[in-house]
Amino acid sequence: MHQVHAQLRTWMEQAGMSVSIDAAGNLRGRYAGIAPAPPLYIGSHLDTVPHAGAFDGVLGVVLGIALVECLEQRRLKFPIEVLGFSDEEGARFGTAFLGSRALAGSLDPATLETCDADGVSIAEAIRAFGLDPAGIPEARAGEAAGYLEFHIEQGPLLESLGGPLAAVEKIVGQSRLEFVFEGHANHAGTTPLQFRRDALAAAAEWIVAVEAEPAMAPVGLVATVGRFEVAPGAANVIPATARASLDVRHPDDDVRHEAVRRLSDGARQIAARRSLSVSVRPQMDQPAVAMDPGWTEKLEHSITAAGFRAHRMSSGAGHDAMILAPQMPAAMLFLRSPGGISHHPDETVLPEDVAAALAVGLRFLEEL
Amino acid sequence: MHQVHAQLRTWMEQAGMSVSIDAAGNLRGRYAGIAPAPPLYIGSHLDTVPHAGAFDGVLGVVLGIALVECLEQRRLKFPIEVLGFSDEEGARFGTAFLGSRALAGSLDPATLETCDADGVSIAEAIRAFGLDPAGIPEARAGEAAGYLEFHIEQGPLLESLGGPLAAVEKIVGQSRLEFVFEGHANHAGTTPLQFRRDALAAAAEWIVAVEAEPAMAPVGLVATVGRFEVAPGAANVIPATARASLDVRHPDDDVRHEAVRRLSDGARQIAARRSLSVSVRPQMDQPAVAMDPGWTEKLEHSITAAGFRAHRMSSGAGHDAMILAPQMPAAMLFLRSPGGISHHPDETVLPEDVAAALAVGLRFLEEL
Repeated sequence: MHQVHAQLRTWMEQAGMSVSIDAAGNLRGRYAGIAPAPPLYIGSHLDTVPHAGAFDGVLGVVLGIALVECLEQRRLKFPIEVLGFSDEEGARFGTAFLGSRALAGSLDPATLETCDADGVSIAEAIRAFGLDPAGIPEARAGEAAGYLEFHIEQGPLLESLGGPLAAVEKIVGQSRLEFVFEGHANHAGTTPLQFRRDALAAAAEWIVAVEAEPAMAPVGLVATVGRFEVAPGAANVIPATARASLDVRHPDDDVRHEAVRRLSDGARQIAARRSLSVSVRPQMDQPAVAMDPGWTEKLEHSITAAGFRAHRMSSGAGHDAMILAPQMPAAMLFLRSPGGISHHPDETVLPEDVAAALAVGLRFLEEL
Repeated sequence: MHQVHAQLRTWMEQAGMSVSIDAAGNLRGRYAGIAPAPPLYIGSHLDTVPHAGAFDGVLGVVLGIALVECLEQRRLKFPIEVLGFSDEEGARFGTAFLGSRALAGSLDPATLETCDADGVSIAEAIRAFGLDPAGIPEARAGEAAGYLEFHIEQGPLLESLGGPLAAVEKIVGQSRLEFVFEGHANHAGTTPLQFRRDALAAAAEWIVAVEAEPAMAPVGLVATVGRFEVAPGAANVIPATARASLDVRHPDDDVRHEAVRRLSDGARQIAARRSLSVSVRPQMDQPAVAMDPGWTEKLEHSITAAGFRAHRMSSGAGHDAMILAPQMPAAMLFLRSPGGISHHPDETVLPEDVAAALAVGLRFLEEL
């Protein structure tokens, strides 16, 4: 991260920005306006996941710097602050959006005591990085014009629509739950079907229902079992336990809650019919977050004015814009993800799409 | 095992047997007949699995000793040799039936080079136990009257029939295969259903078919997915890989092969329809082994003569009797397993059922 900061600081300074690093480890490049005024924040995150690609997050920061560079020292009526957030993914500590929460003033101080796998707390990691976590409250944004984020889509929709860009109107809400089916281990050779209480067979029936759920719900629902473990896990033993994660997302929180309710009831019915038990443990219920309607319309106008078709879509993934939206007007521009691939070394972006995003960004500054 | 041998040796000697340990680690107690003749072998195994109960295997050895004890030094026309096999489960080396294969003369010498998790070979383990593996060929049985094994059923059938004992007519054949479904990992939030290639969803559909298979086949088929692993295994990532074991058993090898063929074809069809791939790797194809029809009939007569209802059943689990059946007439008596529980600390047996088995054993000796 020190090396990334050093590289970006050079580019920021070349573009005429004054650079600082706040106590949450966010890199901040301030480009002054013609007079003091609430700033426009343009940002995204500098971290990503292990074994990831080269564009998730950092592309949005570099696009912010490039946008200022395009101004060629011309001053606007408002300052621009380009933000490189320190930790959006939570890959090390499990707690996401550290950087943008510090800016939004919504970082719970208790979060700083969260430890990584080696027992190092976030506070200790911040100190080891050369910063003082006591200064985090000062990282909070004052009055702001608003927040703009460029980000790769990380999904296949723009590619399937044949367009380079979309205005994000909403970041979908997300439920995460854990389902544990409990049956009874028994000998695979000596236990006829009618005597079995097979946790895996029950979970498989339920996973088929999870996959069918989007067809039962209003368009846009996704439901995924991504983590799945079976015990005892021997070829000749009927599984006693099957432990499954469930991830459900939709732009409409009511639709999402209804799907979660239906899948929870479904699991209980399957378990009851088979004389198994199932426990359903909610782990996360993150409401959908709308981007600012006025700003999103401005962003659409900018896309059209730059000569592209303006798509609108929801984001199925969480983003820093979601954290800042409650504090200030926020807008978000998606760039097409070739192959829909992200969080993978094959993650990429087309140079012409980056050029398009830059052109749209300049139009957006004009609109503002 | 040394302690078990010491205890059983005492009981064997008290019953009038001369005791030895062969090079495969089998405990052998010889009870002479009135004249030299091919012996009747009565045996089972002294090992079991980790975290097991107290009756799997060893009950059959103790019943053999008790049977000789009941003779109260009276000599029969044939010698009896009670065998405590050293390793039937293969819990340490993964190779089952070590002891009975040595007696049957069907132990492949290469097997002795198989190593445990610490890199210790079977040959080294035998030496460390104080025996010389070079002597294993001498452990082979010469001309024999036959083999009788007492064993707990390890399943729920006798309990559901309300009877204490059954004559085993066949040990079912067993297929074991590994199925690997390969799809594509992707973001659970940003990838709509129609873009997914979800290996877990495909495998779940197939597991539902595995569970339905016994209803499609002649009675007696069991099919089990016991080991099941999903990768990458994160709640917000669509599974790329699902790896499943398949265990299929039936007394009729043709029925078993037909079920395996149908489930393999089914997996390929599910994968093809979903644009996934699946690999099907056979790992074991153990034919069914019949017990000797004449001896099984004698055993049935003995059950009836002792005053019990004679059930006949197949064994869904493998047993030492399966290894000896190609070499000599073999018969096997099952004792009811309360709750159908085995390989578990709750494994048990009713004292009155043990008394019944002993009475049947004495009748069987008379029949012979």
